[in-house]
Amino acid sequence: MRIAQLAPLYEAVPPPLYGGTERVIAGLCDGLVDAGHDVTLFAAETSSTRARLEPLGLPLRQRMSRHELAEVSPHLHLKFLADVYERAGEFDVIHSHLDVWTLPFAERSATPSVLTMHGRLDTDYVQAVLPLYPDIPLVSVSDRQRDAVARHRLRWISTVYNGLDLGLYREQPRRASDDLAFLGRMSPEKGPMLAIEVARRTGRRLKMAAKVDPTDVEWFEQVVEPEVGGDVEFLGELDEARKPGFFAGAAATLFPSDWPEPFGLVMIESLAAGTPVVALRRGSVPEVLIDGVTGFICDDVDEMVEAIDRLDTIDPDACRAQAARFDTDVMCARYEAVYNALVEPSAVLADVS
Amino acid sequence: MRIAQLAPLYEAVPPPLYGGTERVIAGLCDGLVDAGHDVTLFAAETSSTRARLEPLGLPLRQRMSRHELAEVSPHLHLKFLADVYERAGEFDVIHSHLDVWTLPFAERSATPSVLTMHGRLDTDYVQAVLPLYPDIPLVSVSDRQRDAVARHRLRWISTVYNGLDLGLYREQPRRASDDLAFLGRMSPEKGPMLAIEVARRTGRRLKMAAKVDPTDVEWFEQVVEPEVGGDVEFLGELDEARKPGFFAGAAATLFPSDWPEPFGLVMIESLAAGTPVVALRRGSVPEVLIDGVTGFICDDVDEMVEAIDRLDTIDPDACRAQAARFDTDVMCARYEAVYNALVEPSAVLADVS
Repeated sequence: MRIAQLAPLYEAVPPPLYGGTERVIAGLCDGLVDAGHDVTLFAAETSSTRARLEPLGLPLRQRMSRHELAEVSPHLHLKFLADVYERAGEFDVIHSHLDVWTLPFAERSATPSVLTMHGRLDTDYVQAVLPLYPDIPLVSVSDRQRDAVARHRLRWISTVYNGLDLGLYREQPRRASDDLAFLGRMSPEKGPMLAIEVARRTGRRLKMAAKVDPTDVEWFEQVVEPEVGGDVEFLGELDEARKPGFFAGAAATLFPSDWPEPFGLVMIESLAAGTPVVALRRGSVPEVLIDGVTGFICDDVDEMVEAIDRLDTIDPDACRAQAARFDTDVMCARYEAVYNALVEPSAVLADVS
Repeated sequence: MRIAQLAPLYEAVPPPLYGGTERVIAGLCDGLVDAGHDVTLFAAETSSTRARLEPLGLPLRQRMSRHELAEVSPHLHLKFLADVYERAGEFDVIHSHLDVWTLPFAERSATPSVLTMHGRLDTDYVQAVLPLYPDIPLVSVSDRQRDAVARHRLRWISTVYNGLDLGLYREQPRRASDDLAFLGRMSPEKGPMLAIEVARRTGRRLKMAAKVDPTDVEWFEQVVEPEVGGDVEFLGELDEARKPGFFAGAAATLFPSDWPEPFGLVMIESLAAGTPVVALRRGSVPEVLIDGVTGFICDDVDEMVEAIDRLDTIDPDACRAQAARFDTDVMCARYEAVYNALVEPSAVLADVS
């Protein structure tokens, strides 16, 4: 099948450091090529892929201020979309990861499009805009993600969980440890202060690996940083190579995310390293974790504290087995079914949930 | 000719109070209908026009917060554009007043489009985006407006000065007065503090009619409001019906705009009422005023102060004669030439500068 993949221009595919969406797209492209498809990736020119790369300038983040990013990037993405859709006839399917910006182009195209919604759907603009396009095929990254727009008739054709190449995590030898791990952005909604509370109340050491975005610097310096020291260790931003060892050296990963997490790649990385996850019951969490098997799904911090006492009931192999559901090939197979359904609409109900 | 006019959805066409672009579009639509064209106006549903109105929901400002406006309105405008361009085959020409948002659609359309750039062109996003579309026909509202993008090859096909139905202004009897007038937004770039300085130094009363946008409230309260009182009178926002009398009762209108004004409707309203304009030499000013004939074009506040002494050398009829260059029918005839040039490209150089 001739498949176009459209990535955001904020980061290279795959990204040098952070960029969950771009990492997922990288694996999807390579996996679809391995499955014999003719894949064209439209992305930042610093990308690297086994698909045919159609490069589109530098990734935006490398050359733009935050202000420019907000003002200018929509227009650059629109030009990008216009150019890709001008060539729509070259493809059987166009798969866009640019979410709502894609909609006006997808609506007018003879080539079927599918949009994966990577972000949260409870924002004003998503709520206002998605219902204007009830016929455009959409994919969610968790079932729960759709709740925010459940009152609207939309054309959800599947949930496809994010997948990553988790081989390095699985091969990473575990180190016996009582330490707890936290990995994520340093922002209130990711719950780093809840992680510190859980560690303190259980008398455990907490290792925190996190990026601090410019918008979060003030909050980090005023709220989190004063608590760092002693048994709370802050490692800064980790590159991909160091993450398997980070997770494999922890007794558990804390995932106290306090917002409707659309997916949560941290959970599957931890599980692949055999490390259970103790999480709050938010967003996608109940779809990614199995309570009592791969860790614990908790309703509040008290339950998270109690759960730490029961970590020895979790089998690392059960964690790894669950992580296998989120490997790249599972995601690729699922997306192949989505593309088949788009190309032969009669197959929709049979192939795709 | 079958002409589609696309108006921004922020305001009705014409607008109940402020909205220069929407007032210009209102006159253009009616004028083109009078000239025998088949005109379709795509605009907010509260609009009122002699053209065929294709209504598109409420004007955005009536139902949205400032935040929603910034986040949501681009997407609503994109849906609007997608719907209009889906119907492009029904028209000979599409004339968009939505500026850069139109570009990705105009580029793919078999029906020729023309975009009037109503705003300033020195912003980051305009600078970054316009050069990506060198073949889309553009109209400027003053020659000077193009300077900000002069280093880029763009397809400027004409300058068409804004036009208004100035009949009520022309008919308004003048009242002998020494007062000075200021009308505009209460924001630093419109120069209200410079107007107050000119009035004080010339011992004249100043009547200020101005809207205060939410973003400008703090500045207005801290900087301008303490100066109001005595010979500085603040009248608030004026509706259209009161404006002819406002200008006709002034010895001169001050236009100390301190930014690259793309056009400046205030100047032509004042001139039509026979009231000279004393302005700073910025943006479009030298194209709209004739120095020494319709008022004075000044390089600084000192020159504005001196100019007030020479107001009796200005003939109100000369002001009215200049205003006639900016009447709706002049604008309509100019746009007809633009449309003809688009439909028959060989006519471009002959008909349109």
